[in-house]
Parts: sequence; structure tokens; C-alpha cells
Amino acid sequence: MAPFDEESILSAVARENHRLPPTVLIPPGDDMALVEMPSRRVLAAVDQVVVGVHVTAATPVALIARKAVARNMSDVAAMGGIPFAILACATLPRGMSEESAVQLLESLRNCAVEFGAPLIGGDTTIHTDPAAPLVLSVTVLAVPRADGRVVQRGGARVGDFLLTSGSLGGSFGADGLGRHLTFAPRLREAHALIDALGEHVHAMMDLSDGLGVDCARMMDASSASGGRALQAQLIADQIPCSSGVTLHHALTDGEDYELLAAVDSRAQVPLGFTVIGRVTAREAGDTRAVILCTGDGVEDASHSGWTHGRA
Amino acid sequence: MAPFDEESILSAVARENHRLPPTVLIPPGDDMALVEMPSRRVLAAVDQVVVGVHVTAATPVALIARKAVARNMSDVAAMGGIPFAILACATLPRGMSEESAVQLLESLRNCAVEFGAPLIGGDTTIHTDPAAPLVLSVTVLAVPRADGRVVQRGGARVGDFLLTSGSLGGSFGADGLGRHLTFAPRLREAHALIDALGEHVHAMMDLSDGLGVDCARMMDASSASGGRALQAQLIADQIPCSSGVTLHHALTDGEDYELLAAVDSRAQVPLGFTVIGRVTAREAGDTRAVILCTGDGVEDASHSGWTHGRA
Repeated sequence: MAPFDEESILSAVARENHRLPPTVLIPPGDDMALVEMPSRRVLAAVDQVVVGVHVTAATPVALIARKAVARNMSDVAAMGGIPFAILACATLPRGMSEESAVQLLESLRNCAVEFGAPLIGGDTTIHTDPAAPLVLSVTVLAVPRADGRVVQRGGARVGDFLLTSGSLGGSFGADGLGRHLTFAPRLREAHALIDALGEHVHAMMDLSDGLGVDCARMMDASSASGGRALQAQLIADQIPCSSGVTLHHALTDGEDYELLAAVDSRAQVPLGFTVIGRVTAREAGDTRAVILCTGDGVEDASHSGWTHGRA
Repeated sequence: MAPFDEESILSAVARENHRLPPTVLIPPGDDMALVEMPSRRVLAAVDQVVVGVHVTAATPVALIARKAVARNMSDVAAMGGIPFAILACATLPRGMSEESAVQLLESLRNCAVEFGAPLIGGDTTIHTDPAAPLVLSVTVLAVPRADGRVVQRGGARVGDFLLTSGSLGGSFGADGLGRHLTFAPRLREAHALIDALGEHVHAMMDLSDGLGVDCARMMDASSASGGRALQAQLIADQIPCSSGVTLHHALTDGEDYELLAAVDSRAQVPLGFTVIGRVTAREAGDTRAVILCTGDGVEDASHSGWTHGRA
């Protein structure tokens, strides 16, 4: 027997229904929630946090919930979207206390409100396997800006400047309890960039797996959509490294949740963004999507990143 | 090391993007998908299938994926909605082969297409814990019917007939490989009922945890919204039991994924639905939300159902 049941958790969600905005026409408690959106176009994504993969077993549940919500908000920022609702699905370890389960839920709900996207649905179950870890997935729904602009990752062009919204590397921390649990998703910065530069913002994505591999993804997507092989030239000296972090870690650590944007080189780069390189046409026979230009020469950075599972 | 990586799975999703309908404006592969809906009102729910909880370890992955999609479609049917997209989040066991992972994905995609709701987003990761089980969550997005009608579970009124769309009990099966893996969500039946009875359909939900407890949920929700304590009187003789299943199991097994509807008693009940009881006003001091009327008398059925974790 688990020390609490799923019903008590679901009731705890429904008890807070009166706090939801009037756009939530049918709140949690029915088979589905019904929401009135400001647009017929909906942006949607799902992302998960798994203990042992994305966070350590020592991570407080409130921070696990926060990370699950914030990762999704970082995706919304990357598209230039406006979040309007989240749904959460939790598979709880058998040994979890009711207190922890309620903390998880409250953190989900509070983070959702913080980002203007109320928790409108969820499902909770308890593992039968006594050792199986917490799995928390969050789906986020968003709408495009009022001007209809949505920024894809595949729009980078030859000559574009590459920008980032903050410093990179060291997010996980030596104890696994670093910035990746508390980062602020770059929603405001994304909209400020689009407000300032308009159509000059050609491509955008968030940095989750490391500057090298993520930048390669932007180049690959942009090459495919533009019909011309692109290469990112990153300038080692220009890459903002987090305090105490080497350039190698800034390129490969991942979990930064900063924006990477490709903008027209004639555009005025707003405060808060750093130019870290440029998009060029890739020469025939060159397979490198990203190169790093240092004082000593040039190296392939297309694979600088990591895959999950180190927690 | 796992025998395959997340990137290969994600690439396999993106390779099928050309098959998506034109309403998917930004397909999987970017930070979020963008979809054009026929309405500004969106229905949303999330549900999960966990090995060891909802299915046994012996269940083929294609059927696990099918169940995850079909459970969500059953929720859409219960609201009288029209599904338009799903997102899936999979946490894979370390030992899973690439072949199984691809089967899981293809089954998700094929089921999604079968129900007219393409797979527009997903996230895949691999457990670090070598014994941790497959966790698959699916989010479904739907829109209301063209007439705008959405049926909630809290609309039942005194005098209503209670209907079900099929036979109950025995779904899990002795080996765990029963009908709960292959059931057809009652989308067509739900719309046929609303088409035929219009506003006479007062409340609807799907039966997932057992007729007793689910019917009690409908009575509780309807009591709360109508301001009057209701009681369901189920007629034992009228409850359609699945072949070889006792009445007790029909009431308590759960996993039926049939519709339970409360309709005006003046309405003509369409083919395919069975009247199983009636909604009455609960007498003061009576705490029973559901009673079962048998030849021998009356018993409390408000708690007839099960909680997950028997797989």
C-alpha cells in the first residue's frame, strides 16, 4: 500500500479551481478541461523530468516540478510564444510521502501561475515497482504573439549574426543542484528581441543540450529549409562563459536554457544579447555544421554537447 | 550505454512529417509544434500507461501505445469532443531494444492517425535505473462539436435515465492481455447520442475505474453543480455484463472505457445504449451516491471499483 491515494491528490487540484482565470471554461475534475484561447493557432510541446536522468534523487520535489515547468516555458520563449496552460502527468515512487506529493503538485501549480499558464489537467499514478523513480511530464500550450509572428529554428541565413541571451556552462553544478533547477526561462527576452528586431529575427531556439549540438541543429534545420548548406562560425573569445566555467564546458554542458538566435547582421543587437558568431555558406565537402574559431585555429564543434543520464 | 539514442527516435518522428495534415503549420522537430484549429476553444487532457500499473511487463509495446492513445480518446468521447492532435512523452527502460522503441513510436503515430489526431510532439528519454519500467504519457487536444456542445459529468438531474454504451467487466483479462488493450473508444457512439438527443444529454463520462465509483463521481459532480444531493439507483438486472463475467466484476473491474450518460427520461434511447438505472434525489442523512437494486434488496455501490496497481 502506498501512503496516500491518487484521489486525494486529484481532489487537492480541484479544490483550487476557483483561482483559475475565466478563460478556463471547464476546470480540472471532468474528463477534459476546456479553455478559451485568444487565437485558433496553438503551439504545443511536451517535456519531462526523470529522477536519475535530468535530476538527482537528492533534488527537492518542488524544484523538480519547477524545472519541468520552466523547461517547457523555455520552449515557448524559443518560438516567441505566449504560454496559456499546462497539463502535468506524474508517476510517483511508491515510497513518496503524501507531503512530498502535495509539494510537487503545489509547486507545479505555483510555477504555472507564475508564467501565466494555469494547470488545467493532470494525471497521477504510483509505481508498483518499489525502486522506480519519479517521472514528471509537462505539456505546455501557448499562442502566437498578437502580430502572429512565430520564430522557427530553420530560418537562419548566410551572413546572420548568432546571438545568445546569457552565459553558458556549469548549469548542472557539482552536486546536481545548480542553475538548471532555478533558471528563468527567457520569455521576456525573446519578446524584447522580436519587438526590437521584427522580421530581422530569422531563427531562434533554446540551448538545452550544449551550444555545439544545438547550434548544429539550427544550421541543419536552416540548411534543409533554405536549400543551401550552412555553417555556424562561433568565435571562442565572444562566447560568454558562466563564472568559473571553461570554454569547453560552456560549449558542451547543456542545460543552459538560454536563447540562441540568428538575426540579420544589419540589425541593432539589443542589450542582454551577445554576438557569438556568424552564419556562413558551407563549402562543398565540408561536413561540419559548427566550427569554433580560436586563436590557434579552427575546430569542429558540431558534436559539442551531452546526452542525458549523468544525474 | 543504452542500445539506441534519443536522437534516432526523434529523427524517425520528423521523417514522417510530410504525412501530416496541412493544419499542422509547424511539424515535430522545432521547439514546439504549431497547429491551426477549427475553434478557439480547446479541450485538453493527459493520461498515462505505466508498466506494472496499467499493463503487465508481458504486454507488447504496440498495444501499450495503443492503450495510451485510446484512453485519451475515450476522454474525448466522454466530453463529446473531436480529437485533433496528440503529444506523447516516453520514458524507456534501459534494456529496451531500438526495434521496440520504434514499434512504440509507430504504434503511437498510427493510432493517432486512426483517430484523426496526428502526433505533433513528443519527448523520449531513457531511464538510468536499470529496472525502471516504461512510462508513457499522452496528451490529447480536441475541439468542441460544430454546434459548440460540450457534455460535462456534472449535469445529471433528478429523474434522468442512466445509460451505458456497452457491456462491463472482465476487461483486464486473466492474463492482463484483455479488452483494455484493444477497446474501441466510443467517439462515434458519443456523437450519435448527442446528435439524437441534443440537450437531453445532461451528463457524460467514461467508465475507467468501475461502474460504482465512476457513477458516484457523476452523482457527486452533479450534486455539487445542481445544489441538490443526488443518488443513482442502478438496477442489477439491467447492467450488461461482459461474457462470463459476474455482476460483481461488472461493477468493480473498471477499464471498460464505455460511456456512462445521464439523459432526460423523455428522450428516446438510441440503439447501442442500455438503460441501467435512474437518478433520484438523495434523502437527508443518506450518504450513498450509488445504490444497487437487486431482487434481494438494496446495497451501497458507491465504492465499487478499483485503484490501479494490480498489473
